Amino acid sequence: MNEMSQLRTVFLEALTSRVTAQEPVSLYDPVHYILQLGGKRLRPLLTLMSAQMYGASIDKAMDAAIAVEVFHNFTLLHDDIMDAADLRRGKETVHVKWDVNTGILSGDAMLIMAYQLFNSYDPETFYELNQVFSKTALEVCEGQQYDVDFETRDDVTIPEYINMIKLKTSVLVGCALQMGAIIAGVDKKEQELIYDYGINLGLAFQLMDDYLDAFGNPETFGKEVGGDIRENKKTYLYLKSIEDEGCATELKEWFAMDYQEMNEEQIETKKETVKVFFEESGGAVATQDAIKTYTDKALNIIEQLAISDDSKKQLIAFSLDLMSRVS
Amino acid sequence: MNEMSQLRTVFLEALTSRVTAQEPVSLYDPVHYILQLGGKRLRPLLTLMSAQMYGASIDKAMDAAIAVEVFHNFTLLHDDIMDAADLRRGKETVHVKWDVNTGILSGDAMLIMAYQLFNSYDPETFYELNQVFSKTALEVCEGQQYDVDFETRDDVTIPEYINMIKLKTSVLVGCALQMGAIIAGVDKKEQELIYDYGINLGLAFQLMDDYLDAFGNPETFGKEVGGDIRENKKTYLYLKSIEDEGCATELKEWFAMDYQEMNEEQIETKKETVKVFFEESGGAVATQDAIKTYTDKALNIIEQLAISDDSKKQLIAFSLDLMSRVS
Repeated sequence: MNEMSQLRTVFLEALTSRVTAQEPVSLYDPVHYILQLGGKRLRPLLTLMSAQMYGASIDKAMDAAIAVEVFHNFTLLHDDIMDAADLRRGKETVHVKWDVNTGILSGDAMLIMAYQLFNSYDPETFYELNQVFSKTALEVCEGQQYDVDFETRDDVTIPEYINMIKLKTSVLVGCALQMGAIIAGVDKKEQELIYDYGINLGLAFQLMDDYLDAFGNPETFGKEVGGDIRENKKTYLYLKSIEDEGCATELKEWFAMDYQEMNEEQIETKKETVKVFFEESGGAVATQDAIKTYTDKALNIIEQLAISDDSKKQLIAFSLDLMSRVS
Repeated sequence: MNEMSQLRTVFLEALTSRVTAQEPVSLYDPVHYILQLGGKRLRPLLTLMSAQMYGASIDKAMDAAIAVEVFHNFTLLHDDIMDAADLRRGKETVHVKWDVNTGILSGDAMLIMAYQLFNSYDPETFYELNQVFSKTALEVCEGQQYDVDFETRDDVTIPEYINMIKLKTSVLVGCALQMGAIIAGVDKKEQELIYDYGINLGLAFQLMDDYLDAFGNPETFGKEVGGDIRENKKTYLYLKSIEDEGCATELKEWFAMDYQEMNEEQIETKKETVKVFFEESGGAVATQDAIKTYTDKALNIIEQLAISDDSKKQLIAFSLDLMSRVS
């Protein structure tokens, strides 16, 4: 996707030039550090694409796009503290490179900086952007909390899990797209349509992530394949698999094991065994079906959007590209 | 101040009824817990007073007042984590009653909730409120970071210290007052005037806090008298005292001691000795002078405000009451 990589270059230039050094450096250095760690920049690109498809300029949408990226990185920064994660994109996390207090405070500053990026819009647009942004930001916190709560529950249902990943991941994808539409001045109904496209794309994307965690290519996956299995994460794949009575008891036993008390050989055995159960139970196929269902919903919404046929083609290609990833 | 206590009652009713229970409870319970811990509610009352003095209704200013209080409590929640403080107003802090992760995430949610409280205003007012609020919120983070940075520096100057407490404390007092003025629709110049009143009042208030920490009445102070001395906090009182060459060397030695390696008797001796140095050096008098200077500046600004004589009298009485506290 040549257009996407061009858009990414423009975005990265703006990110560097508009989020500049400030005092005290001890507060702002970690902000610039995490923003420069890389990543696909998927969310801000969606804001720019959406604005462009609805007839607004890339430049007009840029501050909102940066706000989305700054907010997303704020959540990563605080999540890394909560998960006690040492690495992010192969580099030290902020609370490791500096300390936990710096991580908390620099994260707080990033959340405020995200809001401040809307200041360049006129009051009406500013108001609309803020409404959807605040609603989304609070939902992302709720999603993170449900994720934490689910760790200590063994009765999480499929609808509860879908709601959790919707809050934790999809609403920000929907928000990013809607903000582009707001900036282009389209009506509420159209805004809701592009938002719903984002929700479904986000759900498909997250379920794909769950699937690839078990079945992805270790050479290209970027993270540890089977990391969710190691940490007993009750993903869609797991929840669907324990619906099969023949596999439920053994799977639950594997997922009751404390990985901190297992050696690497035992964990490898666990990963291999659990993956067999995921396939035999029908959980793997059910997850692929769910990915297809949400992808189809997203593609179906594209057809209904008030954008040019060329834009529709572009958005379809983008969606399929995202969903055809093998890592 | 009967009017203030009436206003406080109205505020607390609104706080309880407008910040209501939401799901997941594990995210929102800590929010309600810290908001109900008490306190003087000084900042939101200033928003209400300011709006009222400029002719707007209490009710119209209420959401902004609640936003200020929610934001202030967000800073307390995250500061308590960073300071590893066990108690707040005599009750367990959030990260002790729950855990650090809950404290981080519930704090994040509070910051977003503060922004959301502005949603009830029309877009123009919403825009103006957000501008001053975001600017202030970021400054409070910067002030907190300077405070942390100063702990490991021994060359902090008086202007640097004043700037730090201005950012950490005064700007939110100024912001609270300015928001009332914005809601009442007064012009920018008048907004700046009431903001400056708040800055000076806030500085006087914080310097008074520094002074009372050493010389306050233990029976009414609420916190540990001499807590700053125990923890080697380089307050205005200390920085002014070490300007006296006769006291500087010994004072610096006392402030280089690690309180975690001292028993309570040694700490009592340190407190008494340091207090004598604070007085002999002229630091105590210099601090009282500074408090008087900033209070006078605040009172002088009141005279210039475009409010009724009755309102001026009320604001003067309020300021003097705040500054005459002995604890």
